[in-house]
Amino acid sequence: MSDRKPAEWPANIRPEKTQDWDAFKESDTEAGIQVNDDFERFEQRNDMFCRSQWDEKIATKAAMEFWRGHRKPNFRKGDGFRQRDFALRNASWVMASSIMERGFSEGIREGFTDDIKQFHPPDSNKVKIESVEDMTREIKQVAKYFGADLVGITEYDERWVYTSKFNVRTKEESPVALPEGLTSVIMVGHAMEYDIIKSMPSALASTAVGKGYSTEAAIVMHIAQYIRNLGYEAVGSMNDTSLTIPQAIKAGLGEYGRHNMLITRDFGPRVRISKIFTDMPLYHDKPIKFGVTEFCEECRRCYEACPVDAITGGPPTNSGHNKSNVDGVEKWTTNCEKCFGYWTALRTDCAICMRVCPYNKNFSKWYMRAARWLAGTALRKLMLWLDIRLGYGERDMPQKWWSGDYQKLK
Amino acid sequence: MSDRKPAEWPANIRPEKTQDWDAFKESDTEAGIQVNDDFERFEQRNDMFCRSQWDEKIATKAAMEFWRGHRKPNFRKGDGFRQRDFALRNASWVMASSIMERGFSEGIREGFTDDIKQFHPPDSNKVKIESVEDMTREIKQVAKYFGADLVGITEYDERWVYTSKFNVRTKEESPVALPEGLTSVIMVGHAMEYDIIKSMPSALASTAVGKGYSTEAAIVMHIAQYIRNLGYEAVGSMNDTSLTIPQAIKAGLGEYGRHNMLITRDFGPRVRISKIFTDMPLYHDKPIKFGVTEFCEECRRCYEACPVDAITGGPPTNSGHNKSNVDGVEKWTTNCEKCFGYWTALRTDCAICMRVCPYNKNFSKWYMRAARWLAGTALRKLMLWLDIRLGYGERDMPQKWWSGDYQKLK
Repeated sequence: MSDRKPAEWPANIRPEKTQDWDAFKESDTEAGIQVNDDFERFEQRNDMFCRSQWDEKIATKAAMEFWRGHRKPNFRKGDGFRQRDFALRNASWVMASSIMERGFSEGIREGFTDDIKQFHPPDSNKVKIESVEDMTREIKQVAKYFGADLVGITEYDERWVYTSKFNVRTKEESPVALPEGLTSVIMVGHAMEYDIIKSMPSALASTAVGKGYSTEAAIVMHIAQYIRNLGYEAVGSMNDTSLTIPQAIKAGLGEYGRHNMLITRDFGPRVRISKIFTDMPLYHDKPIKFGVTEFCEECRRCYEACPVDAITGGPPTNSGHNKSNVDGVEKWTTNCEKCFGYWTALRTDCAICMRVCPYNKNFSKWYMRAARWLAGTALRKLMLWLDIRLGYGERDMPQKWWSGDYQKLK
Repeated sequence: MSDRKPAEWPANIRPEKTQDWDAFKESDTEAGIQVNDDFERFEQRNDMFCRSQWDEKIATKAAMEFWRGHRKPNFRKGDGFRQRDFALRNASWVMASSIMERGFSEGIREGFTDDIKQFHPPDSNKVKIESVEDMTREIKQVAKYFGADLVGITEYDERWVYTSKFNVRTKEESPVALPEGLTSVIMVGHAMEYDIIKSMPSALASTAVGKGYSTEAAIVMHIAQYIRNLGYEAVGSMNDTSLTIPQAIKAGLGEYGRHNMLITRDFGPRVRISKIFTDMPLYHDKPIKFGVTEFCEECRRCYEACPVDAITGGPPTNSGHNKSNVDGVEKWTTNCEKCFGYWTALRTDCAICMRVCPYNKNFSKWYMRAARWLAGTALRKLMLWLDIRLGYGERDMPQKWWSGDYQKLK
């Protein structure tokens, strides 16, 4: 796509290739990721959120209203969009915002365009790692202790790291200055509540998103600081710095879904993903397969449910819809211009695709785990038929959550 | 005690009495709190942490080393005090610190000496509260959604609010500038993990404390921002601004224990407490009684276990040991100079008293709930004998937690 590199692109910050990308082929195949010859690393400025700051096509009045609504919402009468719904959504962001806003005056947005700045440098005493296996287990234990719902580790792979980062204030780009010598990326999954997501789309349901970000900011900072306190380098990261999904798949957190989201075994697509880049010696996980690809080939519930037709009903393709898509990876690709356009119309984020996904279930129940297993077998068509028949994926009225019979389920 | 008001005290910031203190007598009695005629409000500068900044008696070399260890720990060879133990403890503080350090250069320590500054002012539209009962239920639901383990509401009572706040940088005092018109205090309890507390004292066990603070900072900010987004005033508070225990007792979170800690029904003494001051109309809770006072009268496990004899084995008294105690309230009073002295010797905080308390149990198990009930009856002596006999309260080796068979229990 010719419009991806405007003339003003500062060529000098473009990173050198420092890894042998062909060496990733085998593990790509194992993970079901097909990277083609025309693949190029992604420019952060082209993600939808950045584009809403500089691209006239995206930075519409509605988009500005969408952002402004995180402070001064235009609440309305409809269930799920009242003052208390927006009040809860905006309150849910408070911790993520407190981290994000630390560098606000310089246009730095930790966790969104920039990695999270740690307080304490790595300890001058590097712990001696006698067993990489034990250390890997320890890091995962610590991650879980600090609240991670899922944790997996993959090798550092520069292909997914952004070519540059974007400054929302100056609208300029600067290098993604990761430390040298990184070897691993610890991928962390954060579950969002099943019952609140059921009222998607609504300001109420978006609360799960804000709370997810707030929680993941804390968890990723705890884990990264732990590693640094052991004397190793660790960079905490949320939406910033690199694409997360290919890394999450390779770290064994789940499979890729038609709706462009990671589908995990324990929480389906109902997760946020964060990551810690590190040079600590750690073992890497293997990708998992539980039938998602085959199921998504049959299932088109997200495609059918999307009100703006942003999700593809067809097979995977190599090329995306616009500059916000990654080209050169064979995959289902969402039209995020349409998607974000709907968010701005709603004045809150939408995840109908997450709600209707047959993998969006409460897997703490044994029969849901049984259904998940069957969805991974030749009975997948039957399971899909049953899922629709039983009314799963239908929207709950936000009022139901507020009525107080809410129980915390993940 | 004559040394409580030094000559340099700036008399002009001393707050006026604005409430009729006699009007609290009835609810005090109901809560088992006896406030005597010589009661005076507490000065924040006299709490142990503030004194470690200005009082030569407390600001010893060991105390400085204790504080410094939160960044540059002196780890040692003993189990529970190794690099990974301190690494985990210091990592656990990261979110509380990120809030606390925002005003560092001005000597402001949000959540510790100063209340937590919110991002967004109260919404200009004050939601109409048609039913105070419904609103009270809603606030509690929201608090639980954001992760509160316990929540209760009590009336605003200036007796517990500090006369002034202390600036750790300038060593000066300034007024506790709470907004006018506050009517309620929402008291929030945050459980700490049973199995990690079992290794008290150790740097590992102190991780539960740091994580508790980090979690409570988030929760209190979420709740306060929610109330503000509904158009009401809300001030988020952790250790700052006021004493928490009398307010927590009056809000029905638990009873007062011999070890000077709140004993809750669900988590015993294993909780941190935070609070939100608000002018939102809310119903107030009643104190609860489940036999703690009578049990503590018999039980002296905390007194016997304290290595520096900081806890009293005798009956409640009206007057404390030194300026860090509140005078004029009839209660068991710990000698916090001795207590903090032991922390500085250990280079980490101690809560042996919390570990050995017979109410420090995992009450998710039915037989523990049964034991708790029996401890509240005439069988309390038998229950105490049994508790010791069965070895409860003994210290787990920190290694046990690290060994990986750790399960998250509250």
